[in-house]
Amino acid sequence: MIRRLARYLPILDWGRRYDRGALTCDLMAAVIVTIMLIPQSLAYALLAGLPPEAGIYASIMPIILYAIFGTSRALAVGPVAVVSLMTAAAIGQVAEAGSMGYAAAALSLALMSGVMLVALGLLRLGFLANFLSHPVIAGFITASGVMIAASQLKHILGVPAGGHTLIEMLDSLGAHITDAHLPTLVIGVLSTAFLFWVRKGLKPFLLGLGLAPRAADILTKTGPVVAVAITTLAVWALGLDLAGVAIVGAVPQGLPPLTIPDFTPSLLSTLALPAALLSIIGFVESVSVAQTLAAKKRQRIDPDQELIGLGAANIGAAFTGGYPVTGGFARSVVNFDAGAETPAAGAFTAIGLMIAAVALTPLVYFLPKATLAATIVVAVLSLVDFSILRRAWAYNRADFAAVLATILLTLGLGVEIGVSAGVVLSIALHLLKNSRPHVAEVGLVPNSQHFRNILRHKVLTDPTLLTLRVDESLFFANARFLENLIQDRVAADCPLRHVVLMCSAVNEIDFSALESLEAINERLKSLDIGFHLSEVKGPVMDRLQRSHFLETLNGRVFLSQYDAWVALTDGAEKSCAAE
Amino acid sequence: MIRRLARYLPILDWGRRYDRGALTCDLMAAVIVTIMLIPQSLAYALLAGLPPEAGIYASIMPIILYAIFGTSRALAVGPVAVVSLMTAAAIGQVAEAGSMGYAAAALSLALMSGVMLVALGLLRLGFLANFLSHPVIAGFITASGVMIAASQLKHILGVPAGGHTLIEMLDSLGAHITDAHLPTLVIGVLSTAFLFWVRKGLKPFLLGLGLAPRAADILTKTGPVVAVAITTLAVWALGLDLAGVAIVGAVPQGLPPLTIPDFTPSLLSTLALPAALLSIIGFVESVSVAQTLAAKKRQRIDPDQELIGLGAANIGAAFTGGYPVTGGFARSVVNFDAGAETPAAGAFTAIGLMIAAVALTPLVYFLPKATLAATIVVAVLSLVDFSILRRAWAYNRADFAAVLATILLTLGLGVEIGVSAGVVLSIALHLLKNSRPHVAEVGLVPNSQHFRNILRHKVLTDPTLLTLRVDESLFFANARFLENLIQDRVAADCPLRHVVLMCSAVNEIDFSALESLEAINERLKSLDIGFHLSEVKGPVMDRLQRSHFLETLNGRVFLSQYDAWVALTDGAEKSCAAE
Repeated sequence: MIRRLARYLPILDWGRRYDRGALTCDLMAAVIVTIMLIPQSLAYALLAGLPPEAGIYASIMPIILYAIFGTSRALAVGPVAVVSLMTAAAIGQVAEAGSMGYAAAALSLALMSGVMLVALGLLRLGFLANFLSHPVIAGFITASGVMIAASQLKHILGVPAGGHTLIEMLDSLGAHITDAHLPTLVIGVLSTAFLFWVRKGLKPFLLGLGLAPRAADILTKTGPVVAVAITTLAVWALGLDLAGVAIVGAVPQGLPPLTIPDFTPSLLSTLALPAALLSIIGFVESVSVAQTLAAKKRQRIDPDQELIGLGAANIGAAFTGGYPVTGGFARSVVNFDAGAETPAAGAFTAIGLMIAAVALTPLVYFLPKATLAATIVVAVLSLVDFSILRRAWAYNRADFAAVLATILLTLGLGVEIGVSAGVVLSIALHLLKNSRPHVAEVGLVPNSQHFRNILRHKVLTDPTLLTLRVDESLFFANARFLENLIQDRVAADCPLRHVVLMCSAVNEIDFSALESLEAINERLKSLDIGFHLSEVKGPVMDRLQRSHFLETLNGRVFLSQYDAWVALTDGAEKSCAAE
Repeated sequence: MIRRLARYLPILDWGRRYDRGALTCDLMAAVIVTIMLIPQSLAYALLAGLPPEAGIYASIMPIILYAIFGTSRALAVGPVAVVSLMTAAAIGQVAEAGSMGYAAAALSLALMSGVMLVALGLLRLGFLANFLSHPVIAGFITASGVMIAASQLKHILGVPAGGHTLIEMLDSLGAHITDAHLPTLVIGVLSTAFLFWVRKGLKPFLLGLGLAPRAADILTKTGPVVAVAITTLAVWALGLDLAGVAIVGAVPQGLPPLTIPDFTPSLLSTLALPAALLSIIGFVESVSVAQTLAAKKRQRIDPDQELIGLGAANIGAAFTGGYPVTGGFARSVVNFDAGAETPAAGAFTAIGLMIAAVALTPLVYFLPKATLAATIVVAVLSLVDFSILRRAWAYNRADFAAVLATILLTLGLGVEIGVSAGVVLSIALHLLKNSRPHVAEVGLVPNSQHFRNILRHKVLTDPTLLTLRVDESLFFANARFLENLIQDRVAADCPLRHVVLMCSAVNEIDFSALESLEAINERLKSLDIGFHLSEVKGPVMDRLQRSHFLETLNGRVFLSQYDAWVALTDGAEKSCAAE
């Protein structure tokens, strides 16, 4: 009973074995993650166009629900950059940023995303996420990073700019650049420079001081906290808010409120597609982080249960003033490096953030938005990796086309069109490749029983025998290709008496392909040419036996191609088909 | 020069070799086809909701243009049943049947279809038609046959009924059934019965009289002409038109007029999708007829040039008062059986139809529409073949689902939704199958160098070595599946030291799969487990060598799986992974 329940409630599994050692590790990790999460949560809320407390709230209930339902021991769930950007893009279509409707729409988006994720998980449809090809995801994340960085420049410059695509953003920034607010710019640029130095230069410096590498790693993650503290103090001490530096201002003190999403049907239907895209992108990112971390400790991730965990987290966010969340890379790695042993570390982090929400929010009153923007810019630039273009180009033109289209469309037309186009293009290019399979005419390698491509090897052929090896499963998209190919070969004036299809690489023959084989068989029969198969795999043969094809076959099925050669040739070894 | 031009103008090829023998054969075939085409053309125009002369016109210019540009020697182009139905469905959305706008929209549809076909041909994209899987086409044709037969019942009953889906049609017929017009019903039922007898009973009867089989075949095709002649005479003699029997009435006498399609942008954009679907369905049907006939004489069909030929035919139809056309099965077979040697037979048929259009149209004034409806019903019922459901079910559940959905949606929601759903479903099911490939754990067959599935055969395994054979190409939709599978196997507490991926059935590794292999390699490396490949195919290996994968591989690439076994095991032969 408990075992069956434990499939849907992994907490029953690790909870029963929880001990003091794990508790100490988890508490330690929670303290470090909490400190790191406070500025990050505020910043991502800003990115999503929501009030700063939404970021904190989105880190509390979701993290607890994930601890109960999720399967990863180290994944930290909460607001992340790409999902925040997608949230802003989705809600920007239906409400004005900063309005009451905007926050309510964010709750609806989180709820829909949560329900979709749970439904996919219960139906065990996690594999659907596989239809996002890796290069498309990489292209999308890179383009999103560029978009996010561009969207934050207005806070660093201190100007009111807007736009949903890169061109619109740069246009709007260009129009306002002369209005740049000097004190804001100084804070923004200095914060950005400091954070870059922390990321690149602090670790070697700390290692030089003799610190252990892991401690140095963790300390570099506190950079944003230091930047936040210094700039907040500076604004407060110098009264820069009165000089026009935008600050976070009053953040409500208290635990996450109980909130009700907006259920207006027209809103829900408008948000359905964005919610689906956001769910899939969030899930793919989260699972790949979870798997990377789990692999290091030989732990297992159940992708379908992960859907349920992430779904529960999003539903939790919807009812506690948050917005869509997922497993974040940076926070999860810190959690793992800081020694988190179980999901309880997440629960302790949630408690830490609750304390912060109740007690520490007055401290961020003077926090300049430019500092938060700087933390976002520095964080997302690590996502930007245009080398995917070069690597895809070197490997495979089709993948390159999919990446390039995803990047250009995401930058030019927005995140939703970009990622949708990437998926459609991946599928189309895959089908296109499959529809023109590699077919080799093969001959016998002298003094062996092996058959190889007549164009690549010196092999024996017989003018009365044509042997074709198809290097692809036969299915509807390429069935007719084979029909045409054989018809073209037969129409040439060779003294052909037998055609053999060597099926060693055919993993499947679908019904369309079966009908094509029947058509080929009929046509060859009317020309008095035998049609034979060789090296057919077990499962394919099982299926053929369920049809009438083998009864009507004007030839034989040979176990090996060599058997076919021996049976069908008279030993004459001339070259004809190879001309 | 001529050779290059001959690729786009096949007439240059056969025209230069034309002689008196071919001329005699072609003239003979043309006479027979012309006689058969007159009632058929009138009937299909009726089905498309157009005036009867549109059917004749659509058989003249298109047949000449196809003779110039097409590659099939025997294909007869003109109105066909399914395309007529699709025309009626498409134009019914934008204009009232019988109105001026309706005929103009039919011209626009023909023009768009023609331009699309020519464009696909010039871009050599004929393979796109392959994405219609055979069972989807079969299901669609069957459902269309039922729809067409149902749509003609109103003419046989002599009632004004309508509807675009089977349910609407039957509903409307049910509401009018009590108004059935008796003389019309008598003509309709007797014609239908006669035509069924001609189809089933006449040939044995003629063979019994000692006629040659081919002559008997051709004579049975004249059934509709006989039915038309008798019923027309009956209406004229008995004055049945005055009693309320619907007749064809006055048909303009003369050559096809020069017509200009309607170029209204909103009309063209509404008709774009229907035109695309109609083009593809028409092309697929036409090419399969052409290939079947060409195969009998060892002739070749160039599908891309066929697109150009059919496209030219449709553009011709658009400017000469016709409507969308394609290569028809019945007329092509008659043409072939009657001995047509070259496309000139088509040109002679066109001349025959021109004579008919100028001289014979007064003769069909008293032709009852019920007779035409009967010829349609009898013709299309030969298209109806529900056995595709049984055959697909026996062979493969996924194909069955696609057929069933196509049939039900075509009958329930109309031809466009039906065929679109069939295409989408075929692709989705194919990807779904590919996304969960067959992966077998293999072991060594004792006293051999062969490796087989440990679940099916008694084989040797080694507890430190896990060998997986993937029976599918690795690409984005299944890459993560493999990642999860290996992670799950490694997380189990076996004393694993090596994982070997046997790639004998892997025809391709795309960029996503490469990244998955890199991720697997990284994870296994961190666990100190070797990762090896064996039996990698040449083209796959070429591609892997273009990436950095082989440099970082924590293991080796073995030529054969047996080499891997010899190198990686210590000879101990216990079973572990097979539990």
